Amino acid sequence: MTTSTTPRERLLDAAGELFYREGMGIGVDALCKAAGVSKKSMYQLFRSKDEVIAESLAAVGPAYQASLLPGPDDERSPRERILTVFERQDQMATESSFLGCPFLSAAVELKDPEHPGSVVARRLKQDLTDFFQAQLVAAEAADPETLAVQLTIVFDGASARAVARAQELGGIGTATAAVLLDAAGVK
Amino acid sequence: MTTSTTPRERLLDAAGELFYREGMGIGVDALCKAAGVSKKSMYQLFRSKDEVIAESLAAVGPAYQASLLPGPDDERSPRERILTVFERQDQMATESSFLGCPFLSAAVELKDPEHPGSVVARRLKQDLTDFFQAQLVAAEAADPETLAVQLTIVFDGASARAVARAQELGGIGTATAAVLLDAAGVK
Repeated sequence: MTTSTTPRERLLDAAGELFYREGMGIGVDALCKAAGVSKKSMYQLFRSKDEVIAESLAAVGPAYQASLLPGPDDERSPRERILTVFERQDQMATESSFLGCPFLSAAVELKDPEHPGSVVARRLKQDLTDFFQAQLVAAEAADPETLAVQLTIVFDGASARAVARAQELGGIGTATAAVLLDAAGVK
Repeated sequence: MTTSTTPRERLLDAAGELFYREGMGIGVDALCKAAGVSKKSMYQLFRSKDEVIAESLAAVGPAYQASLLPGPDDERSPRERILTVFERQDQMATESSFLGCPFLSAAVELKDPEHPGSVVARRLKQDLTDFFQAQLVAAEAADPETLAVQLTIVFDGASARAVARAQELGGIGTATAAVLLDAAGVK
């Protein structure tokens, strides 16, 4: 499952995968078994399962975002850079292992907005909104802050659709985002 | 918690509330305790916890939909009837007990699209899309099927936002839906 070496890395890798695939209800025993780490070691590394949840989400963040967002060397227009995120989401949703945005799933499952995992999930969702907003500022959109939130809503709604229907999106997220960009005159 | 009388009704009421508030990981013991029903009685009434999940979602469906959708005697325009759904969602999200669309949460938590609860959730989400589509057909929109899906995406994304951020929507769902309706010429 993993090529990482330290018990901490193995635990975070296993947690990231199991929490996403099976849900936050996965027990500490199953988690430690998957990571090949004793429970005693786990509790030496993390204060609680809640802390494992939060840290594993934070650890998943950079790779997930890199798989969605265009890099800094992408020289296309802000509009194209925004639509790329939806195209990549569309592509992700074709994979049978796709179970939606991991941060959205975590927030939905944890319920408590003060759970450390919910706090991390909220920050990582905000990163996406911030990306959209930076592109919209560059495109000189009239109200980049509101439009960035609206694009995030479309992103999360498309993710939810792929999960709830267990079927591919067929470009509907990208098309919806394009309508919002068109309406705001972001060419 | 409940004024219903039969063990079956008490179980479905308790299940609807607990699964929504605490998540699908709630155990059969806690569920039976909340319902005031023995485990033996529960297993005489339902084959499994999975069946309780599915039936409790189906039982929640009509009241949830009645709280969101305008009634058949609502004589406003299709556009207004559609936007009413988003205004009501906006209002729901101001309540501290709001944890998003119960059907979307169920699908996200259950993971398995073949779980009987996921099947019910999918059907109930489709009801909302069907409502939008019927209004759009009445409004003679160009592509009612696609636009109905896009409106559902905005609805689910707004729901997700309210949960992930644990804050009010402030009309952003309604505003986003209005942009899509404007773009389609649904006046």
